[in-house]
Formats: sequence, C-alpha cells, structure tokens
Amino acid sequence: MHSNAVQTDQSVLQSALQKFSRVRRTTERICEPLETEDYVPQPIIDVSPPKWHLAHTTWFFETFILSKFLAGYRPFHSRFGHLFNSYYNAAGDRVSRDQRGFMTRPTVREIMDYRRYINEQMTRLENGLSGENPEELLPLLEIGCQHEQQHQELLVTDLKYILSCNVIRPVYHQTQLPAGREKKPHYLVVEEGIYPIGYSGTDFCFDNEQAPHRVFLQPFSVRNTLVTNGEYLQFMQDGGYRDFRHWLSEGWATVNAEGWQSPLYWEQEDGQWFEWTLSGRREVDLHAPVTHISFFEAAAFAFWSGKRLLTESEWEAAARQLNPAMTSFNSLDEWFLHPLPAAGGQENEVLQLFGETWQWTNSAYLPYPGFKIADGALGEYNGKFMMNQMVLRGSSCATPADHSRPTYRNFFPASSRWQFTGIRLGLFN
Amino acid sequence: MHSNAVQTDQSVLQSALQKFSRVRRTTERICEPLETEDYVPQPIIDVSPPKWHLAHTTWFFETFILSKFLAGYRPFHSRFGHLFNSYYNAAGDRVSRDQRGFMTRPTVREIMDYRRYINEQMTRLENGLSGENPEELLPLLEIGCQHEQQHQELLVTDLKYILSCNVIRPVYHQTQLPAGREKKPHYLVVEEGIYPIGYSGTDFCFDNEQAPHRVFLQPFSVRNTLVTNGEYLQFMQDGGYRDFRHWLSEGWATVNAEGWQSPLYWEQEDGQWFEWTLSGRREVDLHAPVTHISFFEAAAFAFWSGKRLLTESEWEAAARQLNPAMTSFNSLDEWFLHPLPAAGGQENEVLQLFGETWQWTNSAYLPYPGFKIADGALGEYNGKFMMNQMVLRGSSCATPADHSRPTYRNFFPASSRWQFTGIRLGLFN
Amino acid sequence: MHSNAVQTDQSVLQSALQKFSRVRRTTERICEPLETEDYVPQPIIDVSPPKWHLAHTTWFFETFILSKFLAGYRPFHSRFGHLFNSYYNAAGDRVSRDQRGFMTRPTVREIMDYRRYINEQMTRLENGLSGENPEELLPLLEIGCQHEQQHQELLVTDLKYILSCNVIRPVYHQTQLPAGREKKPHYLVVEEGIYPIGYSGTDFCFDNEQAPHRVFLQPFSVRNTLVTNGEYLQFMQDGGYRDFRHWLSEGWATVNAEGWQSPLYWEQEDGQWFEWTLSGRREVDLHAPVTHISFFEAAAFAFWSGKRLLTESEWEAAARQLNPAMTSFNSLDEWFLHPLPAAGGQENEVLQLFGETWQWTNSAYLPYPGFKIADGALGEYNGKFMMNQMVLRGSSCATPADHSRPTYRNFFPASSRWQFTGIRLGLFN
Amino acid sequence: MHSNAVQTDQSVLQSALQKFSRVRRTTERICEPLETEDYVPQPIIDVSPPKWHLAHTTWFFETFILSKFLAGYRPFHSRFGHLFNSYYNAAGDRVSRDQRGFMTRPTVREIMDYRRYINEQMTRLENGLSGENPEELLPLLEIGCQHEQQHQELLVTDLKYILSCNVIRPVYHQTQLPAGREKKPHYLVVEEGIYPIGYSGTDFCFDNEQAPHRVFLQPFSVRNTLVTNGEYLQFMQDGGYRDFRHWLSEGWATVNAEGWQSPLYWEQEDGQWFEWTLSGRREVDLHAPVTHISFFEAAAFAFWSGKRLLTESEWEAAARQLNPAMTSFNSLDEWFLHPLPAAGGQENEVLQLFGETWQWTNSAYLPYPGFKIADGALGEYNGKFMMNQMVLRGSSCATPADHSRPTYRNFFPASSRWQFTGIRLGLFN
Repeated sequence: MHSNAVQTDQSVLQSALQKFSRVRRTTERICEPLETEDYVPQPIIDVSPPKWHLAHTTWFFETFILSKFLAGYRPFHSRFGHLFNSYYNAAGDRVSRDQRGFMTRPTVREIMDYRRYINEQMTRLENGLSGENPEELLPLLEIGCQHEQQHQELLVTDLKYILSCNVIRPVYHQTQLPAGREKKPHYLVVEEGIYPIGYSGTDFCFDNEQAPHRVFLQPFSVRNTLVTNGEYLQFMQDGGYRDFRHWLSEGWATVNAEGWQSPLYWEQEDGQWFEWTLSGRREVDLHAPVTHISFFEAAAFAFWSGKRLLTESEWEAAARQLNPAMTSFNSLDEWFLHPLPAAGGQENEVLQLFGETWQWTNSAYLPYPGFKIADGALGEYNGKFMMNQMVLRGSSCATPADHSRPTYRNFFPASSRWQFTGIRLGLFN
Repeated sequence: MHSNAVQTDQSVLQSALQKFSRVRRTTERICEPLETEDYVPQPIIDVSPPKWHLAHTTWFFETFILSKFLAGYRPFHSRFGHLFNSYYNAAGDRVSRDQRGFMTRPTVREIMDYRRYINEQMTRLENGLSGENPEELLPLLEIGCQHEQQHQELLVTDLKYILSCNVIRPVYHQTQLPAGREKKPHYLVVEEGIYPIGYSGTDFCFDNEQAPHRVFLQPFSVRNTLVTNGEYLQFMQDGGYRDFRHWLSEGWATVNAEGWQSPLYWEQEDGQWFEWTLSGRREVDLHAPVTHISFFEAAAFAFWSGKRLLTESEWEAAARQLNPAMTSFNSLDEWFLHPLPAAGGQENEVLQLFGETWQWTNSAYLPYPGFKIADGALGEYNGKFMMNQMVLRGSSCATPADHSRPTYRNFFPASSRWQFTGIRLGLFN
Repeated sequence: MHSNAVQTDQSVLQSALQKFSRVRRTTERICEPLETEDYVPQPIIDVSPPKWHLAHTTWFFETFILSKFLAGYRPFHSRFGHLFNSYYNAAGDRVSRDQRGFMTRPTVREIMDYRRYINEQMTRLENGLSGENPEELLPLLEIGCQHEQQHQELLVTDLKYILSCNVIRPVYHQTQLPAGREKKPHYLVVEEGIYPIGYSGTDFCFDNEQAPHRVFLQPFSVRNTLVTNGEYLQFMQDGGYRDFRHWLSEGWATVNAEGWQSPLYWEQEDGQWFEWTLSGRREVDLHAPVTHISFFEAAAFAFWSGKRLLTESEWEAAARQLNPAMTSFNSLDEWFLHPLPAAGGQENEVLQLFGETWQWTNSAYLPYPGFKIADGALGEYNGKFMMNQMVLRGSSCATPADHSRPTYRNFFPASSRWQFTGIRLGLFN
Repeated sequence: MHSNAVQTDQSVLQSALQKFSRVRRTTERICEPLETEDYVPQPIIDVSPPKWHLAHTTWFFETFILSKFLAGYRPFHSRFGHLFNSYYNAAGDRVSRDQRGFMTRPTVREIMDYRRYINEQMTRLENGLSGENPEELLPLLEIGCQHEQQHQELLVTDLKYILSCNVIRPVYHQTQLPAGREKKPHYLVVEEGIYPIGYSGTDFCFDNEQAPHRVFLQPFSVRNTLVTNGEYLQFMQDGGYRDFRHWLSEGWATVNAEGWQSPLYWEQEDGQWFEWTLSGRREVDLHAPVTHISFFEAAAFAFWSGKRLLTESEWEAAARQLNPAMTSFNSLDEWFLHPLPAAGGQENEVLQLFGETWQWTNSAYLPYPGFKIADGALGEYNGKFMMNQMVLRGSSCATPADHSRPTYRNFFPASSRWQFTGIRLGLFN
C-alpha cells in the first residue's frame, strides 16, 4: 500500500490523527451492542473473536508506529506483540490462527484499556517524532487506519456469524429495514478497447491495486442491477442445488459435503423462506440483492441463467464508465446494521456498484503487472495471499465508505459465504 | 444410581434441600475468581465452558425434578432444555458437544439468573409435592446434588485447562502450597481370597458401583504411596518417552502424534522443570505425587519400574483393608486450589488413597455382574459409556469430599491428561 | 507364548518340520483362487494385502529362526527384513502399516520364490543347529507355525474384503453351502463358584492365555446356540439401528457415522436380504448364525433382546463344563470356504462353540494375573495390544482347527466387522 | 475441444483410424516394462492405477463412439461403463475416485482383452457408420486420441510415482541419460502491444484454448533457458525452504505440513544429492532443468532470485515470437524414459519451450473470453476444473509430440509435484 503524496507538516499530521480518532471510535461503536461473551469465540477459522479484532488493530499502531516514531515509547504489555500479531511472520512469533477463540485473557476490559493507552500515546506524536525516517509516519498512519477499517467490515460479518451460532439468535440492532423496490434489469454495453486498470490517483490505495496498467477487453455487457433474492429463489426452485451440470467440479463437491441448499442464514419454515439478519429474522425480501453466497453459488447461478460473471477488469472498466465521479455514497456508520439495503444510494441509474453486496468476479486474485512487495513486515500485507482466492469488486453494506472505489480488490476463497457477497451478471456481446 | 433408603417425611426433605443449597453455593464459589471471558471457550472437546457447567447442572434439577414435582412450575426459558442437555438422548434434542464453546448467549449473568430462579423454585418444594410418585423426589434430588458435585470437579479441571491456554497464564488463586515431605514407599500385602466388591451400604452410590458381588483375587501387594514427581522425572531422564518397549502400541502412537515429553502443564527452562498450577508456575516438587498423566504414561512408568498397575478390584480390596473406617478427610472447599497437596490427610500410615490424585487402574470400565440400567433418561447416566475407557480409583484434590469412597468408579479414555490423575503401583506376589 | 514341554531330539524336530511344511502348504492353498492383482491392495487399514501375509509369515521364520539357528544362513534379500516386519519395533525399522498396499515389488512371483527359499533352508535345520541356545528352536518353530496359522485366518477374511471391493464381485470358490437347520435355543445354567481360567496344559498356547488363575463367578446361564440371521433380522425390523437406547454411546456414534443398517456384506434388493459370501451372493439363511457384526451391534442386539453378552471368564467356564473333551472338530482346509456353515460339528448337544463364528464377549482385552511379557521382539506379540479391544472367544469357520480351544483369546476393536464375528447370549440367573 | 475442419470421406476416416491404432499401441508400449502388480495401486489420489488408465481411455471410445456410430455394437461388459467413467457425471454413475486402487478385477489381462475388443470394433467403423450425425464421428475420434495421449503422459508420471513407493526402487528402463551442457542464460525482450492468444488454426485443439482473442501486454523479458538443478540447489543451500519471506502463505503452510526440503524424488546421502529417475538413481545433474517441483516452489524460487514467473499470455506471446514455425521436435516414444533430457531439440537458440519440463505460469486456470462449454458429457472435459489450479505451458519429456504447441494449457493445483514441472523466469522491463 502507499499514500502517493507524502507530507509531514504539522497540519497534515493533525488531520491524520483526527482521522485516526474517528476510525478508532467507529470500531468501538460497532461493538457497543455486544455482550462480553460475544467477544470471545471463533466458531469457524475464518471468523476472529471481536476482542481479537479490537486488539490486533491496536497492535498494528503500536508495532509499526509508536515503537518506531514515539521517543521513549513503552509497550503496554510485553506479550501483546505475540498475542495480537495476525500473520506477519516478520513481526515475530504469533498465536496460531485457530487458537484465537481460546484466548480469554487479556479480557475485553483490558483490551479496551489497551486501546485507550495506544490512542493516548498516538496523540503524543503531535509533539514530535523520533526515528530515522519521520517522513514514513504519515503513510504508515494511513495504512493503520485503512487496516482498521478493513477489520471493521470483518468485525460486522464475524459478529453476525458468532451471534448466529446461538440457538436463541440475538438481535444485534433493531431497525426497520427498507422494503426492496423492484428494479427492471437491463444490460449496458462496454465497447472493445484498451482500458486503464488499477489505481493511479494521489490518495491512498492498497499495494494490490497497483501498478496501474492497461488491458485489452473484448466487447461485453454488464447488467445494471444485482441478482435479487427472487431470482436466486427461482434457481433454487429449479433444482439448482441438485444438478451437477451448473457447477464447477469443486463447487459440486462442496455443495454435497456441506449440504448447501440455500444461501447462508436462510431457513425454510412451512414453505416460506426466512433469512436471519442483524435485525433478527425476517421473510426473504424478493427484491433485495441475494447475499451470503459463495463464488461457487454465484458461478452456478450465472451458468444456469445463461449469463456469466464478469472478470475484474471488465467490472472495473464498466464501473469507471458508468460512474465516473466517484463520491462517498455509503457509510459504515449508517449502513452496516442492515443485512442488505434494498436499494443503493446511487441516483439516476441504479447501478448497485457499491454499498450493497460485494460482487464475485471470475478472476483469481493475482498480482498486477508491476506489482511490488514492500520491504519488511508490511510486504506481507497482500502479496502472499495471492493464491486460490477469487476477486470481489464493489463493496457491501458493511464496507466503510471510503473503501468503495472502482479499483478496490477484495478477495476470498471460492467457498466463503460469511461476507456480504452477491452476484452481478455479464455477457459476451 | 440409587439412594438405598428412601424416606419422604418433611425433615428429611428439608435436610436434603439444605444439602442442595450447600452444593449449589460451592459451584458458584469455584467460579468466583473467573473473568466473564473465562466462562466461554471449549479449547478441547473434553473441556466444557464453565458457563455450560453452571447451566447444565441447573437444567438437571429443572428437567428431572421441578417439571415433575412442582405443581404449576413454569420453565425459566423455553429453549434451555435444548441448550443444556448434555447427552441424554431420551431427554430430547441437544447442542452438539463440540459446539458448546460457540454459545455466547445466554450470558453468564443470565445463567446466574437461571440458577437463582431454579434455586428459589426448589425451596418451594418444601410446601408440597405434586406428581404421581412423590417418593421418587428424594432419590432424584440426591442424584442431582451428586451430579452437580461431579461437575464441580470437572469445573476445576476445565478452568485449569482454559486458563492454561492463555500465553499470559493467569493465576486462579494465590496460595502457598505445602512443600512435599519425603515418604518412604513400601509394599503392603493383600492375601489371596474372595473379596466383596461394589457398594452395599445404605447411602447414595452411583449405578455403576452395583451390584455388589464377589471376586477372587490372587495374592498381590500394593504400594503405600503414590508415585512422586521425582520418580517420574527419573523415568523421563532414563529416556522413558523415547523407548517404545515401555509402551502399549496405542500409547506409543499417541506419544509420537502428540509429541509428549512430560506430564501436561510441565515445561522446562534452563534445565529446570516447572509446572503450571492454579496458583501459578512453580518448580516441580519432587516429593509431590505426579499428576496430569494419561493411562498410557502410567502404564509405561509401571512397566519401566518393573511393577504394574492394580486392577480396580485389587485397589478396592486393598482400600477396604487398609482404611476400614472411611471418613471425610478432604474437602473441595479447602483443597481444590492446590495443584497437588504434598501429603494427604490420612494419619498414621500415609496411604494417599484419596484427595491427592486419581489412580489409573489396569481395568477397563465395564458393568459389574448384575448391573442394571435404569429406565428413562437416567438410564443413560453411566452404562452407555462402558467402552474404551479405563477405571480410576481414589479421588483427587479437586474431588468433593463425599465422593471419596472405596467403591467409587471414575473413568476416562486412556489418553486423557487434564484430570488430576496419577499412579499407584502394585505387584504380583 | 510358550510351548510347555521342550524337547530337542531329532524325531521331535522332524515332526515339527513336518508340521511346518503342512502349515506352509495350507497358506498357499488359500491363495490358489486369487489373481495376481488380488494380492496387492489394502482397502482398509485392517486388511493387509495377501502378498504381504505371504511374505510376513515367511520373514518371521527367517528372522527368528534361520538367522539364529542355521549356520551360514544367507538372507534371501537384504531389504526384506524392513519390508515385511509388521510391528516388531525391536526387530528394526518397518514400512508404515498404511503403506502396505503401495508395495508392488517384490512381486507375487518373487514372494513365492522367497517362500520356497525359506522352506528349503528350514529343511537344512534337520542337519544340525547352530547358535547359543539350540533348545530354543522348537518353541520358536511352534510359534512360527501358530503365527502363520493366525495369518491364514486373516488371509481368508482379508481376501473376502478385497474381493468385495469389486463392483463385479468375483466368486472365490463355488461351493454348495449346507442349508441351516432350525435349532431350538435354550439356556444352560452354570453354578456360582471358583473356576480355573487360562491355559495350564502342556501343549502350545499364546502368552495371553497365561498365567492360569482362578476367578469367582456369580451364577449365570448361557444359551446353547448362536444368534441366527433370522433373529438379527427381527432386531433390524424392529428399528434396532435407529433407536439410540440399545446402543453404547460410541456405538451409536459409529452407526451414524458409518451409516450401518445391517451386517457387513448384506444388501437388500426388492425387500429381500442377500449376503455376499466367498461363494457368491445368496439369500440370507435365516437359520445360520449372524456374522460380520461389530461388538457394538452384538451388544445392542443383546440389550434389545433383554439378554447380555457373556464375560470371557463365563464363556470359558461354560465351554469347559459343556465340552470337556476338546478335540479337533473343524479344519481350515475344509471349512474356510464357507461363509458360515449352518451347523457346527459338535454332536449331541449342539453348542456352536467353535468353527462357526467368533463370539464377542463383554470383556476388554487385558492381561491375566501373572501375565509376563517375553524378552525381546517376541515380547511385542500380544501384550502391547491390550488396550481398547474386546475379547472374542470360540473360533470361526476360517480358524485353523488346532486354534480352537476354550482358553484362546482373540481380540479386535469394538467396531471391527470384517472378521467372522457373531453373538452368544447369556443371562444373570 | 473441436477439430476445426470436419471431413467424412473414406480416406480421411482411414487415416484417422490409423492414428487411432498408433496412439493405442503407444499406450501399451509404455506399460511393457511393468509387472502385473504395478498396474494396481493408487498411492495418492492424483495417481491412477495404470490398469485404470488402460481401461478408461478404452471406455472413452466405447461410450462416445462405438455405442453411437457402430450399428449393432455390443458392449464388452455391462458394468465397465460404471467402472471406468472418470468424472463425467452426465455419462452415468461411477466409482469414487479414491477407490480406484481397490479394483482388482477386471484383471490386467481382461483389460487388455477389452482394449483388443474395442480396437477390433473400431476397425469395423470403416465399413459404415450408423447414427443420426455421422459427421460427428471424426471430431470425436480425434478427441478420443487426444484424450488417450493425455493419459499417456499421466501414465508415465503415475507409474514413476508408483514405482517410487517401493523401498526397493525398481528401474523402469535402463538408459544412458545425456549429460547436461551448461547454457548461458539471457533475457529476450518482448515489446508492449496487443497479442493474439488462443488457438485459431484448423487442426485440433482443446476447448480451453479458445476462443482466440487479444490481450494487451506490458513490455517484459523472458529467460531463454529453464532454471537448472544447479540454480535450484543454490536456493536450497541459501535456506530457501526455511525462510517464509520467499513463500506464498499457503505455500509456506504446505512446505511445513509436508516437510518439503527439496524437489520430489531427491534424496541426500553423505552431502551429495541424488534423484530417482525412471532409469534408477543418479547424481543430480546440475545443468539439467529442475523438475518435480510445485508451483509454490517455483514461485518461491522466482521471488528469491529477484525475478518472477510469466503469465500464460506472456509465455504464449513469447513462444510465438521466438519459435514461429512450430514443428514436432520431441516424441513420447523416444523421450519419455528420460527423467529430463539435458537439452531440448531446438536448434540455434536454445529455448527449452517444449519437451523438457512444463513451466508453471503465474496464471490461474480460467476461461478465455468467449469460452463455450460443449453440450452433454464432453462439456465436462475442461470447464468444470477451472478453479484453484495454475496454468502450465510448454510440454515435458513425457508429453506426446503433437501435444506441444504454443496455445496448449496444462493445469494442476499449486501443490502438485508428481508431473515433470519446472521453472521459466521472466522480468518486468
């Protein structure tokens, strides 16, 4: 990742620290409805305990910023480096990923103390930086905030999963969800040509969005709307989960091994389908975008419907063309409580590019031409996961607002379902 | 299980309810040093979350007593029957055993409310019983208390394991452990003959202690003391964990698969062995009984030392002979904090039969002649686990006082190490 | 194991070598109907490839006899010691048990050459023994023959399993099986008392049959006949495989994990049950003893029927009482082809103790009082497997004749089904 | 797959059947050095038993050609359709993939009879076709031959693996391998531009090589030679297998789980590295291309060396540019015995594109723009495997000659090592 324009004067630093505070508060607000017990378990390996998210994002600032740039900084606790390192081999030893749910200490209260301590220490940076390369602080601070924002989205999806493990399914937040409105889908044509791909602006982006480069695209079309629950239900009712012909070989094996018959969190009662949301159980809204489906299900649906998934280049080219002026249009603060807003915030043409569900592409997560891995521990941020994962584009109702951009590359294994993931269809022309 | 003398007059009921209150308070006192987070996880399948123990023992009284004997009883919560059933298939549906650590709700506070509610409802039994067979109440009440006491011991061993999963190993209770005194071991002879086995008294016993019957024993000898840490260390230093000849085939496979090199909770630093206890880390006390070892380790040690483990009949015959007047000599309230008291409470001849470590026998857990399985759900209490488990005799520092008796049969798989389990040696004459 | 009377004069040696030749020929005769391909696979870990049996039994004679007692003996091949060692850690390195089916070389032809070479070398022993303790030869030769005979039974059950893996199920040997005759079951009473257990004769026995000792038995009754297919079918039709109440906890888990609904090799077609035998598929014979069932199924059937399994002591005491003059009454040469002869060879009272199915007892496989493990590699023969296995008594249609005796202890894990294993019922009086 | 020019006149059919005969004979010649036992096992799930390859390729002709185009065709055996179907769900039921090594019948001899029968029946096609669409025969015949040729390469790599499982490692074929010559590596520049990708000729290609399309490539360079054993040894000696920084996250996990320390088939003795080849063990030839490495190892080596792997588009563009006139330059008949020829057959510039090792690319196996899945069972040929596999380009010493072309897409999971797979490096300019 990098922040393309580096400045170190005082007002810039103050502004960065204000963003830091804002981001940190948001994380804590997400946790407010939780009980202490909800912070502890790791029911599947993908899901981390909320207390771990709270501590790990804090550790990031301590390890990569305070210990380097704050003169005389004293670590909060000598073992936290070990406890809350996620996967940075270069940053030292760490707790095995599948053991996170067994760490009862430090307690939630102690982790909140840890957060407070780090927050306070961070404000001391205003008074002067130490270290050999003070100009590196701002980029690292930006990365730390971006990193914590990524964990905000994981926090939302993880706590949704954790709460769902309770037979007595607790309501996270009682809100009235907007009813979906029916939208007429049609296909928008994108011409053959050479398109720019990747981030070339001057704000922050992650390392995997670079280097900016060109791709040649054959002509194709993209559907303006996401696939709805109603459409997905047709696939189910047509025996979609029981007909091998629609599925990738590994997808078919997964469907059978896991006994999948519907999206995650759906359940049928007396012939009616319900979905479990952060606001409790509700009837499946036929006009809302389908979500909590794996790549395998997205691909099978696309095949069944005679369409296909887009590649990530196609998605990006289409997004730039359709939505040239990218603005912040959603906000984790407002939206994340919703299982799925029935209509995105875009005016005029409803495109649903951002803020509803991530959209599986048919592209594997691989480096762009000219991709460079950073030196040191931060070099482990993205590059080493470029294997056996599929790219998702857009953003979801749980994505922080400024993480929605046409070049953002999200990625998960093809069998993942606990994120807010859905389907956008495309066509060869 | 049965209580051999059944009475239902009022004073007996009052006395039983007083015991009930005492038992319930002890359970809660065990939990006092815990943080809320410590109540949640299930790091290995054998270990249940403390909150689960608290609720399951309560469920037992609700299901088998209140719903049957208290007129107009209203369940605390409609789903708790499902949530806190352990393995009683006959008592309805239940949560899969390996999912207990993912149940964050009800919270600890709600479970404590549940306990309080049940405790209050139980006092109402004094005012009159309903139901078809009120004479069945007292035996069930006794079983409920015994059941909760068994869970007290599990609670202690489970929370020890849970706390040990924290890299920052918390101290459960800071106490000064008594230093071990060296005891000279010698062998006591038991003559050939027919011996009575099993419970034939008039107090409570579990179903697996019956029917009382006779066995013929060849002459044998039993060591007066338990094997000490010092002796076990000699076995380790002699390469005991690396020489297949000492081990059962399955034991050798387990040693290699698990990488065992010492008892559970031991760790070496700079050539010195330490053990982690509920009072924190301390140097291994060479005179204290070795504990937290599997049957496989007990059997390998015995073979290495040229001795053997006793059968459960031999143990029981020896215990009766050596200690004819059984009295309460230990108490969970006082003792359970100790990893291992260095000397049991028996006067005169130190025998260490009870109150220090359970003693693995070379007997598989199987029914006695005349063993009968009770009707209904309680029939599932013991009988259905009589497969691939080894019997342990005596009791440990975590055993409630009145669970120490010569006929008590504890049982665990041969690879279990998280209980306070140790070694008593015997000899053919 | 030991041979109680040791003699070393020439005629005894000649006679022992004649037995050796007889045993070796029988092994090869069992393999005659096989195709080369049938000798290779190991479809489950319990089943060894026939070529492995052929080589391993030969290796036993080479390792424990020829290399010790034949002056100037040159091993057939330098690596065979490694390849065909089964579990004798003390005899050196060995191929991991689950890799036996991947060993394509040496070929069957080469293994037959190996057998011939060893057979020839064995005849040279008549001309004079070398080594420090020539008096040890005869006992070892006896053990080698006994060992090979044990493998003959395994060979039969293993090749039955291997052939069954072929969708096109080949017929091993076409024979006309005798139809079962209906036998009226009744119970024979055995009085309370002290009974001798274990082998105390002067012929060969295995180490696990010793030391001879006494047990006290409560009075009990034993059924004269084995449970038939017809009776077992009633259990099935009564929902036996779907009612947890009949099953041990681990048995119930196994039934569900494996999807068991009938004995191994049974299959239903158009409402009719068939079993696959070494002579091909045939309708289940309702009067023949049920076989290829696990201990779990035997115990569940017994519980369902209101009876129980015997302990191994009860079985032995009953067998001695009922059948005082033990004679050879079956013969592998004649019988092993039969899936189950409908009636054993005993005259007068039909007891079916031997030669039909092994009979699961409710005793775990543990050492007798005074059991001693031999020095060296042969000490690994039996003792180290005394864990998590149940004892079977009697013998089956695949057992060599002279392995049928009242003291013989066979043992398998409670879930094993590929042996000829069945049910004898007993009763408390 | 398709054959772009379809003709059905008699001479074309005769010529196609001659190719059929040639291909069939080659398959059988590959098996000549095998013993019957070698045809049976499946030591890892990737490896199929040679007898299965022999039968499955034959089944393909029977199912897709004879049963459709030969009037009055009678199947060789009613169950072979079930037995030798590989993964074509649409073609009916099939044996689970991990059970292939347990199928001892039909025997090798019977499978050879099956092959002969099918070969004879195929010759009868010359006399006249039946069926609704006789013009479909030739394309299917071509696919059948191509399919069998693909299995020839698998047969070679599978039998190499099978033979390697024998501690006594048999020599498949004794040949004198040419010693490697040192080649000076340098980098060839490929200019930025739009390049044609995919097959657009008129001969046969597989479906995954289509549709032909264009890609835009940034400028890059490609090394003229493959990475040698000597270079790979430097990586090993530099601690390459012990430094997480070189590895993808999943690669690092695999290295540790599998204990990889060198390429497959390498072993060290007295400080010297040897590799096991089809011609027996030999010292590692430092000038020969490294082979039997996974994608993970290829990528780690590339990272360590400061270079990178090419994408498949880059590889194809480079191959077309460097080698415009593709000719047959290797031949399975001559080459497959060699573990790795030290120098490919290309004259002038040594490029080693084909005939030595497959070259891992950094491209996931995904559909080309315009890729279409065929109707019916043949639609399952390639498309459904487009998930979690990496593309390999070029060809190996075991590849049939006419399978070497610049557009051919081979693919395996990133952890596969039993194919002849190696490394070609590239660079961003």
